[in-house]
Amino acid sequence: METFATRGYHNASLAEIAERSGLTQAGVLHHFRTKAGLLTGVLELRDKSDIEALGDGRPRGLGMLRHLVDTARLNAERAGIVRLYTVLSAESVTEGHPAQEYFRSRYTGLRAIVVSALREAVDAGEVASTLPVESVANGIIAVMDGLQTQWLLDPRAVDMVETTERVITALIGVRPPPEG
Amino acid sequence: METFATRGYHNASLAEIAERSGLTQAGVLHHFRTKAGLLTGVLELRDKSDIEALGDGRPRGLGMLRHLVDTARLNAERAGIVRLYTVLSAESVTEGHPAQEYFRSRYTGLRAIVVSALREAVDAGEVASTLPVESVANGIIAVMDGLQTQWLLDPRAVDMVETTERVITALIGVRPPPEG
Repeated sequence: METFATRGYHNASLAEIAERSGLTQAGVLHHFRTKAGLLTGVLELRDKSDIEALGDGRPRGLGMLRHLVDTARLNAERAGIVRLYTVLSAESVTEGHPAQEYFRSRYTGLRAIVVSALREAVDAGEVASTLPVESVANGIIAVMDGLQTQWLLDPRAVDMVETTERVITALIGVRPPPEG
Repeated sequence: METFATRGYHNASLAEIAERSGLTQAGVLHHFRTKAGLLTGVLELRDKSDIEALGDGRPRGLGMLRHLVDTARLNAERAGIVRLYTVLSAESVTEGHPAQEYFRSRYTGLRAIVVSALREAVDAGEVASTLPVESVANGIIAVMDGLQTQWLLDPRAVDMVETTERVITALIGVRPPPEG
């Protein structure tokens, strides 16, 4: 994870990964076969730990939007993970990148989760029934991603938590309540 | 530009760049000395053409925010340029990347322009004087960047123009007027 985060996929060397894991390159390839396989393994590991962190069932409605603000707060303490996703998601749009389908699916999944949460908030009467949930979901995901790039380059110029909450509040017309 | 956009910096080969420019590798290096120098040259060329596109003096106040929405519209027709910036800005957060300082300065400059435009809108009474201009500027820039990654991976899932305008309108409490 650290090597892909600090170098990107293309510039990461198996030699460095092997050395940092205390294995030979042959040892690494025995487990993962290729560098692309190793990248997929790293991304799957991360997803598993994120889903586990969410606990039993994701928060519903506005609670899920509060969870996104809390995720921004958590991210401000883990630059390595943030760098991993920022670098690899953008690099994945290059030709033939091994994680392109992974990130395409990941965004589809994120969008579906945020759209569902917004629909729950509509059904609960917490936000207006006219809310364009797809556009709002894309905007929330986009602002979180974009802030990460700015923050990695210049941490003092960006308050990821404050700006994420501000954009969510502005888009849905109400502030997500603190988690109870 | 095309090679850096489709491959990223680290994975771009001088051989491909030379072939696509109809030069030898020695010919390319005669002009740019190193691959890093070539990247800097490409980014400076892009900036110049973007500044030229803006014409004499940037739009003021809300007009500048309208210009950002129009930029999103233009971007939806030029995936190559969007890919170049998406890939390189994210890759620039990796260790020792030759464009890291370029992108740090670029965001500082973008932030200053958007903050100035928001202050002009405040002074003109177009938006509330309590608007937290730095946070709003960061949010606007972030949403534009984040939408680009989603759009490059899945163009039909994202309407960059509509969502950019929606986020700006929500953040400043008023819709940027059409350019006159």
